[in-house]
Amino acid sequence: MSSSTPDLSSIAGALADAAAAQSMRHFRTPLDIITKADESPVTLADRAAETAMREILGARVPADGIFGEEHGPERLDAERIWVLDPIDGTRSFITGSPLWGTLIGVLQGGRVVFGMVDMPVLKERWVGQAGKGATRDGQPVRVSGCTEIAKARIVTTSPDIFSPADWTAFDRLSRQCAMRRFGGDCYGYAQLAGGTIDLVVETGLQPYDFLGPAGLIEAAGGVVTDWEGRPLGLNPDQRVIAAATPELHRQALAVLAA
Amino acid sequence: MSSSTPDLSSIAGALADAAAAQSMRHFRTPLDIITKADESPVTLADRAAETAMREILGARVPADGIFGEEHGPERLDAERIWVLDPIDGTRSFITGSPLWGTLIGVLQGGRVVFGMVDMPVLKERWVGQAGKGATRDGQPVRVSGCTEIAKARIVTTSPDIFSPADWTAFDRLSRQCAMRRFGGDCYGYAQLAGGTIDLVVETGLQPYDFLGPAGLIEAAGGVVTDWEGRPLGLNPDQRVIAAATPELHRQALAVLAA
Repeated sequence: MSSSTPDLSSIAGALADAAAAQSMRHFRTPLDIITKADESPVTLADRAAETAMREILGARVPADGIFGEEHGPERLDAERIWVLDPIDGTRSFITGSPLWGTLIGVLQGGRVVFGMVDMPVLKERWVGQAGKGATRDGQPVRVSGCTEIAKARIVTTSPDIFSPADWTAFDRLSRQCAMRRFGGDCYGYAQLAGGTIDLVVETGLQPYDFLGPAGLIEAAGGVVTDWEGRPLGLNPDQRVIAAATPELHRQALAVLAA
Repeated sequence: MSSSTPDLSSIAGALADAAAAQSMRHFRTPLDIITKADESPVTLADRAAETAMREILGARVPADGIFGEEHGPERLDAERIWVLDPIDGTRSFITGSPLWGTLIGVLQGGRVVFGMVDMPVLKERWVGQAGKGATRDGQPVRVSGCTEIAKARIVTTSPDIFSPADWTAFDRLSRQCAMRRFGGDCYGYAQLAGGTIDLVVETGLQPYDFLGPAGLIEAAGGVVTDWEGRPLGLNPDQRVIAAATPELHRQALAVLAA
């Protein structure tokens, strides 16, 4: 099956709109919260949003693969794979915080070529596409020029996401930074793409958690790898580091490994 | 000097509007960041916003006292005192997070009778007034009915705000909760007033950090005291606990003190 390259940004925009229509109906209303095997809270909204996204992909790019949080993988042997997290930050969602988002990443031949972080409550849409740069609501954004740990602002979601050994490494790195912040879920990656945060370091992330942010950040000029400096793919349970510059990335990796 | 009671909500709304006009001009733009003696980052926006707020108070309630973060106390012997924090969450502000707010509390005869948490980026205005209940953007809100630690959702800004002994106490309490979250600055208090968070526990707070939130939460049906269960006033460096119900408050105090 051959066709011209579809407009990834247009399709992703339709996916994010469809997801937001579902998720916003449920935000700050009582939810039946289902506990999945991995203990993360997941909501009716999450499932309905991913279903709506898959329907659009089925209509517009039916040969493409899909890797979603809620409904499992489809056609992972396809040249292009859409990686979907309809509501990243379900704990933010169920506690009424606006810092949850819809994450959409596109892998082409195994490389991240597109990423979106859509924030429905904030009404902010962050988009990055390889070779085309990154935008927030259509306005160009770029990572900071920070090249020194001592000047870096670092964020992670919670101390509770780390194993004891990984916490030791994160704590060592973050205490050398100019500022460390907790909370924010996926929004930390948007802040990095926009130049107001310099480092995001997390663990235990799944492909749908990091590939959308990675596509955004790489297009904004930043670097995203695992803690060994390897590119991220569809492997589960990754330790992720995102940095504004290659210099900062290299130094931070060294401190994490020390 | 005698006069009828002014409309606190109307005056506070004008204050918040004036503060937001200053702060939003500077949000996500480069700032000259001044380090104060207490090391907290403070911005030009912060100072300009408080100046604008004081001008309004000077025009509308000139006999009232003012206790502000940036420009010091005035007339603290007045019957009514306005307690102002133009930008609470300056670290959120300078890292491009939307979770900073303008906090306004009113003490009357030493008691908190009014509180506002205004979130300019989110465009959410949370208001509580003794005897009149609490609202978000004019819609009534109320705390949750949570009466058990094991079912409670707890939030604090960062592990870094606690002394080692206080962290041990917070950690003990928060690990007994159904969910613990970090980050959020003043927004945690709004979430508590809205019923989506059940406990907020913090330390090292100043009156301008907690009196606005306390007025909001008490009007929404919650309880706010220090860690010994005492009412909050204009004392500095308080350890604050805010709870959705008296039962939850009593149990949480006991765990903190254990």
